[in-house]
Amino acid sequence: MTRADPMRYLDAVAGRALDRPPVWLMRQAGRYLPEYRAIRSEVGFQDAISDPATAAELTLQPMRRFDLDAAIIFADIMTPLEGMGVSLTFDPGPRLDSPLRSASELTPFDAAHVAPTLEALRLVRGALDSTKAVIGFCGAPFTLAAYLVQGSGSKDFLTARAMLADPQSGFTVLLDTLADAMADYLIAQLDAGADAIQVFDSWVGLVSRDDYRRVVMPSLHRLVTRLEGRGPVTYFAPGTSHLLDLVGSLPVDVVGVDWRLPIVEAWNLVCGRDDSHVNHPSSRRAIQGNLDPAILLAGPEVTAAHVTEILDLVDGHPGHIFNLGHGLTPDTPLDSVAALVEAVAAWPAHAGEIDITETAT
Amino acid sequence: MTRADPMRYLDAVAGRALDRPPVWLMRQAGRYLPEYRAIRSEVGFQDAISDPATAAELTLQPMRRFDLDAAIIFADIMTPLEGMGVSLTFDPGPRLDSPLRSASELTPFDAAHVAPTLEALRLVRGALDSTKAVIGFCGAPFTLAAYLVQGSGSKDFLTARAMLADPQSGFTVLLDTLADAMADYLIAQLDAGADAIQVFDSWVGLVSRDDYRRVVMPSLHRLVTRLEGRGPVTYFAPGTSHLLDLVGSLPVDVVGVDWRLPIVEAWNLVCGRDDSHVNHPSSRRAIQGNLDPAILLAGPEVTAAHVTEILDLVDGHPGHIFNLGHGLTPDTPLDSVAALVEAVAAWPAHAGEIDITETAT
Repeated sequence: MTRADPMRYLDAVAGRALDRPPVWLMRQAGRYLPEYRAIRSEVGFQDAISDPATAAELTLQPMRRFDLDAAIIFADIMTPLEGMGVSLTFDPGPRLDSPLRSASELTPFDAAHVAPTLEALRLVRGALDSTKAVIGFCGAPFTLAAYLVQGSGSKDFLTARAMLADPQSGFTVLLDTLADAMADYLIAQLDAGADAIQVFDSWVGLVSRDDYRRVVMPSLHRLVTRLEGRGPVTYFAPGTSHLLDLVGSLPVDVVGVDWRLPIVEAWNLVCGRDDSHVNHPSSRRAIQGNLDPAILLAGPEVTAAHVTEILDLVDGHPGHIFNLGHGLTPDTPLDSVAALVEAVAAWPAHAGEIDITETAT
Repeated sequence: MTRADPMRYLDAVAGRALDRPPVWLMRQAGRYLPEYRAIRSEVGFQDAISDPATAAELTLQPMRRFDLDAAIIFADIMTPLEGMGVSLTFDPGPRLDSPLRSASELTPFDAAHVAPTLEALRLVRGALDSTKAVIGFCGAPFTLAAYLVQGSGSKDFLTARAMLADPQSGFTVLLDTLADAMADYLIAQLDAGADAIQVFDSWVGLVSRDDYRRVVMPSLHRLVTRLEGRGPVTYFAPGTSHLLDLVGSLPVDVVGVDWRLPIVEAWNLVCGRDDSHVNHPSSRRAIQGNLDPAILLAGPEVTAAHVTEILDLVDGHPGHIFNLGHGLTPDTPLDSVAALVEAVAAWPAHAGEIDITETAT
């Protein structure tokens, strides 16, 4: 990588000053793209993940259409669990043949089962130029456990919440088992060429503050500390306004935040600034977010206006990665996505006020 | 009502000191009760609501089985909308024949359509003794609008969120129209014998802080100010840890909180105390909550332990109404509900430390 071609995503993670933040979008490889639907009309979801060329192609599709700074590998958070004795189908969400009741039903993590995903990572890393980041990912222990014990998707994941409340349920062992397996999986992804990792804790917003601190956080520490020195880690946990200060104490590099709080308020909570008069947050953690993906349904003009509003709030502060506050939805208009990416590129409104000296290594 | 038989629920709303808090449970008239399932196996959901005797019977069933301090009328938040030109079925959630796009598609509130609910309120008030409260309810404008424009239940209500972001969408007019109609509906319920009102804002936790303040709160003010001097109002909005200080500025008597924050932290946010060292919250607002309903699935012992933990946190502070942080779920064991009610009755552990002088009028 030359000084002329820095990787914007990693520069932002490192807190370097940039002329604009990097931008990528959760679920950017997805059903809103006609070229995605064309492939998926021929290939099932699990088959697409299991075939490295197809998974790489789906990963690269949004990179060709939009000037995005990172690609996230096409896979599912349940993918590694299928190699651990979990039998499931997608319809479209994961559905287990029978809900898991104990960690003892899981077999050890099997790298062979995720070989297609690792090969797809190699293909994607080889296909993209060095300015673009490739992101690997996994589900966080709580979110995986919630699916496993519920047996399917759910709006409330009652079984996991009941087990959290019951010290006799064995839930802690399940979380630790999943943390160890996901650490192995993420290390394999970094070894295969991923530049960074994102841990998705999609459903932990259902957990009380006490349970998060007492039961969930130890498993996250167990997972994340295994990755120290190997690559930057983003932790994304939507619906966790009640947990953001605790999230900020996790040893991760980036915290992804949803749209519920203004980005600077969320950033201040993550970084332990409870003085609401502070306009510019601490840069102890990079922040990823936080446009509501529903806004793109209102069209390109409304989208661009809200993108600019977020960028104005951040005001060029180093350590911002532009993203949504949740995944792109299937009905998203393509021109809204284009308007989003263009609005990020059109920033800064205040270029003269920030240091845009190149500091990339 | 004599001094010997005060209405415990209204005493708590008024912030009077009590030997124990009142207790009732959201969705206490529901599918977890065998006697409810017996009736519903013969009578459909909408038919049960439309028949005053059946609605009253379903309302009273949990009052016979458990020593609860309040009954909430059996109806649905969509019930009054069916008289406003909205055609829908339940399967089991509401599903509109076609999603609403504009407030102009709604006809004015029609008291005749809700006559069965008003008659059921009269029957229930007549059947219960004067120590028990009867609670009427409605859906909050945002939550009703979210269903109307989505056309069904949803985990993300994307259409409403997109309309919120778009000043041209007419969403504000829709919220105001619903606020006016619900005010009429609630006044009719109070006139029919309801002692108090609860406004359910089940999905507003999806809304950003800025949108809540800018668009949603004005409609809530519009609704709630119509009720001033007519009866106490509870506002329940789960998943709103990012909004609780704003909720605390609404002119309501009681705020219902979910299980995500410890009850005293939630109470402090609602009442504007951001000093986390304060153990005993201000009593400017009564607080209703906040046991996670999932905990009841773990059985009576786990349930009782968590009930006592909440009561210990509140420590006899006046203005607490014991409830769940969300509705009872269909799989809830009856003995967990019994254990909950008994654990509230078995409190106080610290009776000597609080003023239990009768101050009821």
